[in-house]
Amino acid sequence: MAATPRIVVVGGVATGPKAAARARRCSPEAEITIVDQGEYVSYGGCGLPFFLSGMVGKIEGLMTTLSGQVRDVDYFHNEKNVRVLTRTLAERIDRAERALHVQSLATGERFALPYDKLVLATGATPTRPPVPGMELGRVFNLRTPEDALALRRLLEENKGAHFTVVGGGLIGLETADALVARGAEVTVLEMMDHLLPGLIDPDVARLLEHHLEREGLDVRLGTRLERLEGDEEGNVRAAVAGGEEIETLAVIVGTGLKPNVGLARDAGLALGKTGGIVVDEYLRTSDPDIYAGGDCAEIAHHIGGWKVIFPLGTVANKHGRIIGSNVVGGNERYQGALGTTVLQVLEFNVGRTGLSEAQARTLGFQVETALVPTMDVAHFFPMHAPITVKLIADAASRRLLGAQVVGPGEAIKRVDVAAMALSLNATVDDLADADLGYAPPFASAVDAIAQAANLCRDKLDGLARSCSVDELRERLAAGESLTLVDVRTPAETKQGPGLGRPTLRLPLAELRQRLAELPQGQPLVAVCALGTRSYEAQRLLEGAGFAGVRFLEGGLAAWTGR
Amino acid sequence: MAATPRIVVVGGVATGPKAAARARRCSPEAEITIVDQGEYVSYGGCGLPFFLSGMVGKIEGLMTTLSGQVRDVDYFHNEKNVRVLTRTLAERIDRAERALHVQSLATGERFALPYDKLVLATGATPTRPPVPGMELGRVFNLRTPEDALALRRLLEENKGAHFTVVGGGLIGLETADALVARGAEVTVLEMMDHLLPGLIDPDVARLLEHHLEREGLDVRLGTRLERLEGDEEGNVRAAVAGGEEIETLAVIVGTGLKPNVGLARDAGLALGKTGGIVVDEYLRTSDPDIYAGGDCAEIAHHIGGWKVIFPLGTVANKHGRIIGSNVVGGNERYQGALGTTVLQVLEFNVGRTGLSEAQARTLGFQVETALVPTMDVAHFFPMHAPITVKLIADAASRRLLGAQVVGPGEAIKRVDVAAMALSLNATVDDLADADLGYAPPFASAVDAIAQAANLCRDKLDGLARSCSVDELRERLAAGESLTLVDVRTPAETKQGPGLGRPTLRLPLAELRQRLAELPQGQPLVAVCALGTRSYEAQRLLEGAGFAGVRFLEGGLAAWTGR
Repeated sequence: MAATPRIVVVGGVATGPKAAARARRCSPEAEITIVDQGEYVSYGGCGLPFFLSGMVGKIEGLMTTLSGQVRDVDYFHNEKNVRVLTRTLAERIDRAERALHVQSLATGERFALPYDKLVLATGATPTRPPVPGMELGRVFNLRTPEDALALRRLLEENKGAHFTVVGGGLIGLETADALVARGAEVTVLEMMDHLLPGLIDPDVARLLEHHLEREGLDVRLGTRLERLEGDEEGNVRAAVAGGEEIETLAVIVGTGLKPNVGLARDAGLALGKTGGIVVDEYLRTSDPDIYAGGDCAEIAHHIGGWKVIFPLGTVANKHGRIIGSNVVGGNERYQGALGTTVLQVLEFNVGRTGLSEAQARTLGFQVETALVPTMDVAHFFPMHAPITVKLIADAASRRLLGAQVVGPGEAIKRVDVAAMALSLNATVDDLADADLGYAPPFASAVDAIAQAANLCRDKLDGLARSCSVDELRERLAAGESLTLVDVRTPAETKQGPGLGRPTLRLPLAELRQRLAELPQGQPLVAVCALGTRSYEAQRLLEGAGFAGVRFLEGGLAAWTGR
Repeated sequence: MAATPRIVVVGGVATGPKAAARARRCSPEAEITIVDQGEYVSYGGCGLPFFLSGMVGKIEGLMTTLSGQVRDVDYFHNEKNVRVLTRTLAERIDRAERALHVQSLATGERFALPYDKLVLATGATPTRPPVPGMELGRVFNLRTPEDALALRRLLEENKGAHFTVVGGGLIGLETADALVARGAEVTVLEMMDHLLPGLIDPDVARLLEHHLEREGLDVRLGTRLERLEGDEEGNVRAAVAGGEEIETLAVIVGTGLKPNVGLARDAGLALGKTGGIVVDEYLRTSDPDIYAGGDCAEIAHHIGGWKVIFPLGTVANKHGRIIGSNVVGGNERYQGALGTTVLQVLEFNVGRTGLSEAQARTLGFQVETALVPTMDVAHFFPMHAPITVKLIADAASRRLLGAQVVGPGEAIKRVDVAAMALSLNATVDDLADADLGYAPPFASAVDAIAQAANLCRDKLDGLARSCSVDELRERLAAGESLTLVDVRTPAETKQGPGLGRPTLRLPLAELRQRLAELPQGQPLVAVCALGTRSYEAQRLLEGAGFAGVRFLEGGLAAWTGR
């Protein structure tokens, strides 16, 4: 490398500017150039839904530093001594001469940028389902500031209009949330049988789905978009899905992203099975002078090293830092991602990290789980709110594999704690034992995540024997002759929700005295509000000699999708 | 042990009832008895300030389960099959005959409770400073429901009266918060030079102190209570401290706790240097049939095994679970505590875990720290609020030793993440690399705690060279000839706070062009709002050949105690 290393970065959104800024921090002398075909650089892409909703007033808000400076071409030049070429297309990498060939979209001029190290931060492009009508007007993605500006204008000009969101994933739900905040009518179409597929499990998704239904969002699961119908002006007029024609002003497609790897492929760099650019732990591609990171790179999952692409701002920023260090002589390694994802939709918080139960099973783990509906802070503190924690663990090693936490309450703190634990390959015992903070405004004396970890331990140790909501539904549907024992207080069984099934009502406080009322030789499932007292009942009944006793894990909260 | 093991528990607040409940869960057949000299059992002691403030309406709220059942004698009998003897004094342990001798405070009757396993959860008693007047009326602790009931009555009958809180620790500040919420005038006296001594460092405490001052709380640091003056009825009338007589209606003493070990000492059980009962990792005392936990037991610090007593609800609950398992044949170990402590005072959040900088230095670690004032969530998200993160690490091993996070923003999530990391003996690199969740309502793309971990790494790697606020004050006070370079924008230097010292104003964006304006051969300290751009300036100036360059860590936010 020359005394003054020349660093060229393709892509000006997250990984690219971060790599440039980090390289500058590590090396005052490097010559650093960022090339991007767009108008805007270094914007907070994850903030676009909040610009759409109006929470962020101006699009520049997403490009402003904490000190109020707009991160534009001048900013990078003056503050970072980094040259930024916007509206400049990276056309070709000449690996032999080590030059990036580019074209100015403004002037048409073509020129070469010689590099010592090249950084590919080319990002990803939204995919669209292969159905008729996708070329119509008013069919959007929400990926760039331009997308958000156009959509926001449309929203402002058409108060109360109907919008269709295709895809019940992260982008789809954040977009739906923004549209609802603007007073729009919104239909969400999701092909799979639950929201956030690939991120959370159906049992947890159900809690979110019930919340959104209660809030009046039109969510259609297991519903594939068939086609879009246009009007005479070439704009979308209706979405056809599930055999129904849904009249709509506009369609926003959030069905996934495809890594932008054309430049890398044309240059002969290795691509992986996921479609992303292959990188090693230093984020070097198959050419040691070329690095790649962010949405275009294929990375290792922290838990088992499988190759994945996580198009997330967190990953992009970490990659930027590592690449920025390494292109100027550093030696930093990427530790792999957990796919930690958090979002808020209609004031319901959703977070997940690591593997879902479905993913863990697919990967061949012997899975144990725990599902605990509880409160986010001390329940005697007035501002408490429900959250539900699901943990996924490997039964053989007791290693924690994943966590999902959802609810109107403070769910996200627990996701971060679980992510920290997963990063360090913790067991469920480690998670349960962690000395987390407690004061009534912040937690319970045994924090929600520790409650779940304790249940998971008790299940692994054979102390807790539960039956999941889905399992109970299946057993009942199969006509199995089992007795449901509702151990809640009389006040609760009167006011609270029920199973909608014949149940024996034996409050826990009376259970010991009334054992004779229970049938012998039949499986028993104890039920309560949250699964705590029914677990107590399971132990009591086992102690009294009953066999085949289970408790309904998550209780009526999980059953009804509280 | 007999086929039906007899478990006797002394102490009915946190560890005791938890141990009893856990033992019952593990063993349906054990005979379990709890003995407590008080009227109330199983109350959330940490909730007392919230009962005092009125946030919790009735004292029973602190003894109610999530399902609304009051945890009284009947509850334990009916739901848990646990016998609770309230107003019963544990007088003597006869280890030879394995019996606890008790006396009913109601009837005076004396009797023995034979045990197979005995649990000492005797708690701790508030200490009072050895000054005249402590015996006066209206001098309180806030330890029991009785304390809280009496204080609340006094507050309600004397609106706007003045109260004096002795001790600026956890209890003192939570009590002050509750009193202020009730409209009282409050003076807090703290003997040491900063609030929360032993918990947080002075630089972090300053941020809290400035907040409390702005909120109008009368905090007097370095001020020792000399004596209390009484009126003719024998009630307190004034507190004398720092030579001043402070007229006051009542005094609440929160100066510390002393473990209740009389029973253990009389029985010949080993006591430690801290004054607590010695236990092994299974929480067994020197008599293998007697366990101890909670505020009366001396435990190992997780980081280095030093003996400590942490009178915290979290520790008490964990101890209860472990003891409950072990007294009926289990084999669980306590992993040691980190002293994680969180609190809210006048809407300012404070959290800490592990070692403080001062503790780490005292213990002989070669300490590195990082102090980062930042925002709790994406700064473009309207509901962001400031927090400041301080990390403490061992420079030799890069192991994280402690964290302190404070501010009006969401500080506590980061404390829990750090606590999880500390539990697993993480390095600062592990903390920086953790895949934490990001969405604008919850975090920044690089979370606050990762920002601090990254700064700590850069300091360890010699990239970042900072000067702390205290160091700068000392250097200035010593008359050192150094140049302060304010690299903020002109708008900021005009509106924002300043150092109150002559500074060169060279905005970062102009610094490269204006290097000639800087004096040569003199130490330089770059200054900005938060320490980010001044770090940038340090790198730039070093790259330009200047020596002795530092940046003000934490920036003007730390300097002014924002």
